[in-house]
Amino acid sequence: NKMNIAVIPGDGIGKEVVPEGIRVLNAAAVKYGLDFNFDTFDFASCDYYQKHGQMMPDDWKDQIGGHDAIFFGAVGWPDTVPDHVSLWGSLLQFRREFDQYVSLRPAKLMPGVTSPLAGRGPGDIDMMIVRENTEGEYSSIGGRMYPGTDREIVMQETVMSRVGVDRILRYAFDLARKRGGKLTSATKSNGISITMPYWDERVLEMQKSYPDVTVDKYHIDILAAMFVLHPDRFDVVVGSNLFGDILSDLGPACTGTIGIAPSGNINPEHKFPSLFEPVHGSAPDIAGKGIANPIGQIWSGAMMLEHLGHPEAAQGIMAAIETVLTDPALRTGDLGGTADTVTCGKAIAAAV
Amino acid sequence: NKMNIAVIPGDGIGKEVVPEGIRVLNAAAVKYGLDFNFDTFDFASCDYYQKHGQMMPDDWKDQIGGHDAIFFGAVGWPDTVPDHVSLWGSLLQFRREFDQYVSLRPAKLMPGVTSPLAGRGPGDIDMMIVRENTEGEYSSIGGRMYPGTDREIVMQETVMSRVGVDRILRYAFDLARKRGGKLTSATKSNGISITMPYWDERVLEMQKSYPDVTVDKYHIDILAAMFVLHPDRFDVVVGSNLFGDILSDLGPACTGTIGIAPSGNINPEHKFPSLFEPVHGSAPDIAGKGIANPIGQIWSGAMMLEHLGHPEAAQGIMAAIETVLTDPALRTGDLGGTADTVTCGKAIAAAV
Ligand SMILES: CC(C)[C@H](C(=O)O)[C@@H](O)C(=O)O
Ligand SMILES: CC(C)[C@H](C(=O)O)[C@@H](O)C(=O)O
Repeated sequence: NKMNIAVIPGDGIGKEVVPEGIRVLNAAAVKYGLDFNFDTFDFASCDYYQKHGQMMPDDWKDQIGGHDAIFFGAVGWPDTVPDHVSLWGSLLQFRREFDQYVSLRPAKLMPGVTSPLAGRGPGDIDMMIVRENTEGEYSSIGGRMYPGTDREIVMQETVMSRVGVDRILRYAFDLARKRGGKLTSATKSNGISITMPYWDERVLEMQKSYPDVTVDKYHIDILAAMFVLHPDRFDVVVGSNLFGDILSDLGPACTGTIGIAPSGNINPEHKFPSLFEPVHGSAPDIAGKGIANPIGQIWSGAMMLEHLGHPEAAQGIMAAIETVLTDPALRTGDLGGTADTVTCGKAIAAAV
Repeated sequence: NKMNIAVIPGDGIGKEVVPEGIRVLNAAAVKYGLDFNFDTFDFASCDYYQKHGQMMPDDWKDQIGGHDAIFFGAVGWPDTVPDHVSLWGSLLQFRREFDQYVSLRPAKLMPGVTSPLAGRGPGDIDMMIVRENTEGEYSSIGGRMYPGTDREIVMQETVMSRVGVDRILRYAFDLARKRGGKLTSATKSNGISITMPYWDERVLEMQKSYPDVTVDKYHIDILAAMFVLHPDRFDVVVGSNLFGDILSDLGPACTGTIGIAPSGNINPEHKFPSLFEPVHGSAPDIAGKGIANPIGQIWSGAMMLEHLGHPEAAQGIMAAIETVLTDPALRTGDLGGTADTVTCGKAIAAAV
C-alpha cells in the first residue's frame, strides 16, 4: 500500500537537504519494495510569507492532514520574518494541531564522527531524548502590561496538564522498557516550584506501573552538566517541552554534530500525520552553497519509515549512513570530509 | 574597618567546606591587613527545619540584614525536606528579599583540572555567566486546577519586568565593556513567544548605549550545544534566571568540574548584603566523609572580597588556589588528587 508523504522543504538549507532525503527514500523503495507518493508544498516557508503575508494558507490542514506523514526540512529566515512569527505560523502549529505530542530525538555517537568530548568513541553515547511537544513552557498565554513605560511587565504562562504529562511519560516509560529499563527525568522542582514538582509527582505515579524501569531524576542544570561529564550514564531521557528542546541540542552536540541529528514529531496513535525533520535549522549562513550535510534529513526519513511500519527499510538506511560516514570523500565539510550535499546524498542512496 | 560577615554553613558538605573558606579568609586577613568579624547562624538548613518546622526564624532579616555580606555553604537535604521547601524557604528568599539581582558565575578552565572537552587546556575557557536572579521563570505565581482528576492542569507564570531585565542587562553590558567588549545573550524567542521576544527587545535597546560592545544572540538550545562545541567563543554571557542557572552549571562542567565553581548573588548597590556560595549543592552522597572539594567555597570567598573592595586580597586567594591545584597531593579526590577537605583548605591558606 502506497505511503502518501507531504513534503515541505521550507527555508534555507531545508530546500537543499530535503531532495537528498527523498533520493534515499526512493532508493529504499526499490530495495525494500515500498511505494511512495510525494506531494511537495511551498508553504511553511518565509518565501511563502513574503508573497501571502502568512506562513500557510487557511486550508493547510485540509491540504496535508490526510497524508501519512510530513517530511519537513527547516523553517525560519530571520532577515525577512521574525523567528517567533515563522515558527508559530508553521512548525509549532503542526505539532499542536496534529497532536504530535512526542518529539523523539536520538543522540548517538556515530562512526566517522569525532565527539568534542575527550575519549568518547562510537557506541559510548546512545540516548533517546523524549520531549513533550505540545504544551509546557511553549504556551501562547500571556501578555504585556504598562507597555512602553518603566513599569512594564511581561508574563507568560507555563501550562502542564495531567493528560499532557502522563501521555509523554507513558511513551518514555514504554520506550525505556524496550531499550533496557533505564529512564532519566529532567526536572527543576527546586526552583520552578509549581509546575516542576507536579512533573515529578506524575513521574512517581507512573513509575508504579513500570516496576521494571529504573528512574533517575536530575535537575536540568546538573543534567546538562552530566551530559558533558558522563553521557554514558543516560539512555532514555524525558523532559518538558523546553528541557527536551535544550537536551536534544546538547545531546547531539556531545555526539559531535547537530548537523546529522534527526527528529520525529509523533502522534503515536496515528490519528494525525507525524512530522519528521532534522534537528538543525535553516542555517542562513551556509544556505545556497550546496554544502549542507543531508544526513539529519536522511536519518529523519529512516525514522519516518520506522513510524510507518517499515523497520527493516529504516535499518537499511541507517546502515548506509554508517557506511558513508566512514569515508571522508563522501562526508560533507562539517565532518571534515570533501563531499557536497548532493554527493553525500547520492552515496547514501547507492549504499542502500 | 571591620567586615561583618554572616556565615551560614547550611546542609551536607556546606558544613565541611565553609570552615575551609573561613580558614583561607583569615589567612588573607593576616596577609593583607583585613579585619573580619564572622557570625555563624544555624538557620537556612534542613536541621533547623526539623527542629522548628520552618527553614528560618521569623526575624531572619533583622539577624543578618545588617551584615556586609553572607558567606553561604549549601542548602538542601531531600531525604527530610523537599527541595522546593528548603530552597524557597532560604536561599531563594535571600536572593529576593536582599534584592541580589545579579548572580555572577565564572567558568574558567584552571591549571590542574582536566576538561572533559577534547583538546582544551587552561586559558581556553574563561567566561562570566551573568544570571538574572530575582524574577523570570522562578516566580511563585501559579497553581493547580481540577486537582486529583484527569482534567488537572497546573500553571506557573514567568514574569519579567522592564526594571528587572534592564538592570541585569546593564550589569552584563558594563562587565562586557570591562572584559573586552563581547556579550552573548541567551534567548528562546523562537519558541517562548511572549517573554523571550521581550528580552531580545530590551537587549537591542540597551545595545544603543554600548556601541563598543559586540552582542551575539543565541537560542538556549543551540547555545548549550555551542558551550560544548566552541566554548572559546564566549566571554560574558547573560541569561534569564532559568537559562542562567543551566548555563552556569554547563559552563563549569565544560571546565572540568562544578566542584570548584563559585558564585556571587550580588546587590550591586550595596543596599543589602550580597551572598557568596559555591555552585555545587549539599551533595548528600559524599556528605560527612570529609572529602568534599573546598575550592568552590574558597573561590566564593575571593569573590566576596572583590565585592567588598579588596581586589588585591581576592587575587591573592586566586593565586593560592592555582598553586594548590597543580599539586595532586593537595587536590581532592574529585580532581584525581589524594587530599581531604581540610588538607586542601590548609594548603590554600598556607599558600596565601
Ligand atoms: C538549588 C536551586 C534552587 C538553585 C537555583 O536553581 O537557583 C541552584 O541550582 C543554583 O544555581 O543556585
Ligand atoms: C525552532 C524552534 C521553535 C524549535 C523548538 O524550540 O521547538 C527548534 O529549536 C526545535 O527544537 O525543533
